[in-house]
Amino acid sequence: MKSADLVVIGGSAAGLQAAMVASRHYMIDSIIVIRQEEKVLVPCGIPYIFGTLGSADKNLMPDTLLGNAELIVDEATAVDRSSQTVSTARGETIGYKKLILGSGSRPIVPPIPGADLENVFTVRKDVGYLQQLQQVLAGAQDLVVIGGGFIGVEFADECRKLGLNVTIVELLPRCLQLVCTEDLCTRAEEKLREAGIRVITANGVKSILGDGKVDGVELSDGERLKTDVVIIGIGVAPNTELAREAGLEIGEQRGIKVDEYMMTTDPNIFAIGDCAETFSFFTGKPVPLRLASIATAEARIAVTNLFEPRRKNQGAMGVFSTKIGDLAIGVAGLHERAAAEAGFDVAISESAAVDKHPGSMPGAAQLSVRLVFERESRRLLGGETWGGPTAGEVVNTLAALISQGVTVEDVAFLQVGTHPALTASPLAYQIVSAAERALASAA
Amino acid sequence: MKSADLVVIGGSAAGLQAAMVASRHYMIDSIIVIRQEEKVLVPCGIPYIFGTLGSADKNLMPDTLLGNAELIVDEATAVDRSSQTVSTARGETIGYKKLILGSGSRPIVPPIPGADLENVFTVRKDVGYLQQLQQVLAGAQDLVVIGGGFIGVEFADECRKLGLNVTIVELLPRCLQLVCTEDLCTRAEEKLREAGIRVITANGVKSILGDGKVDGVELSDGERLKTDVVIIGIGVAPNTELAREAGLEIGEQRGIKVDEYMMTTDPNIFAIGDCAETFSFFTGKPVPLRLASIATAEARIAVTNLFEPRRKNQGAMGVFSTKIGDLAIGVAGLHERAAAEAGFDVAISESAAVDKHPGSMPGAAQLSVRLVFERESRRLLGGETWGGPTAGEVVNTLAALISQGVTVEDVAFLQVGTHPALTASPLAYQIVSAAERALASAA
Repeated sequence: MKSADLVVIGGSAAGLQAAMVASRHYMIDSIIVIRQEEKVLVPCGIPYIFGTLGSADKNLMPDTLLGNAELIVDEATAVDRSSQTVSTARGETIGYKKLILGSGSRPIVPPIPGADLENVFTVRKDVGYLQQLQQVLAGAQDLVVIGGGFIGVEFADECRKLGLNVTIVELLPRCLQLVCTEDLCTRAEEKLREAGIRVITANGVKSILGDGKVDGVELSDGERLKTDVVIIGIGVAPNTELAREAGLEIGEQRGIKVDEYMMTTDPNIFAIGDCAETFSFFTGKPVPLRLASIATAEARIAVTNLFEPRRKNQGAMGVFSTKIGDLAIGVAGLHERAAAEAGFDVAISESAAVDKHPGSMPGAAQLSVRLVFERESRRLLGGETWGGPTAGEVVNTLAALISQGVTVEDVAFLQVGTHPALTASPLAYQIVSAAERALASAA
Repeated sequence: MKSADLVVIGGSAAGLQAAMVASRHYMIDSIIVIRQEEKVLVPCGIPYIFGTLGSADKNLMPDTLLGNAELIVDEATAVDRSSQTVSTARGETIGYKKLILGSGSRPIVPPIPGADLENVFTVRKDVGYLQQLQQVLAGAQDLVVIGGGFIGVEFADECRKLGLNVTIVELLPRCLQLVCTEDLCTRAEEKLREAGIRVITANGVKSILGDGKVDGVELSDGERLKTDVVIIGIGVAPNTELAREAGLEIGEQRGIKVDEYMMTTDPNIFAIGDCAETFSFFTGKPVPLRLASIATAEARIAVTNLFEPRRKNQGAMGVFSTKIGDLAIGVAGLHERAAAEAGFDVAISESAAVDKHPGSMPGAAQLSVRLVFERESRRLLGGETWGGPTAGEVVNTLAALISQGVTVEDVAFLQVGTHPALTASPLAYQIVSAAERALASAA
């Protein structure tokens, strides 16, 4: 029987990061990673296979990242906690001292007629499946994307680059509604429309039409859209079967229950990433946030705590970024509505400036920052940024500040480096100006 | 006699930011700005006039930034503290309740023979003077830049784009030696050489040669270089005459002495920016840091404290960025040698990854991060980042973390947003990976 000090089930962002960190940083010599996939996709890169990259092969995570971990391509079918072993589909039994479950999630398929027709796809992290989608898209004229969250919006934007007639159908009043303020949703929708994408919101898909193969969809309001392909991107459900069958507890958001050390109800088993329950940095309550950046953070925490409790999870803040056309968007922590829903009385402050200086520098674009802070304590709870591509890193400065529990006054003190070709002017640096404005209006 | 609640002397980064913030955020109605220049240049943009922008007119700060402040273009010649008035060269007397001195700095001219020859220039914030330099460069073949700090290096890189034969002469062993680690100096020098610039270090200019007009320089080691133009960029000296004559105290770094509220030894007079003494965030001791980003931070602090002490200066951290060819560089706080000089026992940790993910995304470049932290306390003291252009904002995340006194453990916890087109992978985000590595090696 094979065995290892650390066995990791799952080789996507969570499992791979766990193996990487355990091997490279914590010098655990004996690591086995069990994953089903021969090749592993960069999860956030999947939409970009279809337009920007051109092939799934350009979107793979190299196995060299595994360090000295042994890779077993096989399906883990059961965990026996008493014998500390994992059984696999190919009949292997693998012993572990410590086990990390990073079994991920699977796409949710809505219970609507026609969801099983040919050329209806979900967003699976599966090279062969996505290659098949790519082939179908190559021969298609019309595409309906169901779901206007990040995945749906990114797929629509990329597939539009192939010349397809693309329609997004979103049930909520706005695309990206769960992740940012309405104003940003509007900007994103405008960019999609500018690219020639039809955006239908506040409307669901009642049924997918076709005889064997999809040829249209019928919306809740009765409108019918002709289409050759449907991509469903409405969210994911955690893979918890292994954990459940092994008798581990499941949380209220349907992930595997873990404590602040990422330990499940069995002290030798940890769970990380999409399959694990995540709690909010702000409220301490379970939240359905599933992001690669959270998965990797949880992986690092779990590895640190394998043999002794050393590092507590502070909860997920939720830091997102995306790019639609030339509009980059970043959101850290609680946007205004999310903060209100979490019970905070918040105030808002905004600032915009060009992202190079002077504005005549080549490639200069507008970049805006919006701060969300608690009115009474003035604690920073969230931030949004949008405009040029530096939004992708500006949001991480916001995240760093939020993580330290700073007040708006601390933000106004922020010392920044500025350069004509790289950032806004020091006179108008957006994060600082927004904080300054908030302070002055409260003074 | 004219008078105002707030009079600001100087209209560059410090003075302009003070007037902006006082007018826009703190609603001070009665503000007069006295400055000598008809037009004000973006200070950090000056080198970019010569290559990227093409003219000084494209590098101006618009007077609309002054808000409702009244602008007087004139030279302040004396401050009478008992009558609370400022006299000007044109014979005006202007009364103030509170006065902010933002009188800036002037280029240091080294005491070498020939420094007064025609076509020897310093880097003055003066539109006409720089237009004259531009004209001279247009008819020149060879340029010697004396000084390999930020200004010298940026001028060399930009003027090279005009097709000039450019030589940098730096007295210290390395270009950028005062601002970053030797390794980064080497990378910067390599980029300069790649662009065809000759870089001479550990060598001074003994004399500037020529009969009326410059035609060469002689180095300390005896080598003679033929040249049509010399640009001297070896640093600046604070303008403190007005303050000195008004009886205000001057500090040991030759700036106007101020307390932590940016108040001079007269409670009605504040000093900010290059003319004011700056102290270190890390040691509390005076430091010769003169940056537009520090000037604007000091301006905001001073304005807040004009009528009551409200916000203490925490001292200057020093956050820099620049771009040489396609190499962007950012430094926040203390680099390794600076930390050692300040008496800290430090450890270093580095991480590099591509700045988009997968690495096949268009425009992807390598980006590295180096963390400097105190060995015992593990407190983060500094960080360097270099590679692609996002270094310009990644350094601000480092600055935000340093400002909050975080430990390496806190950094390893940092939650970040990642996106294929905007940032490194969540598996390899450079700041986090460097911290993780540091923690593991200390465990």
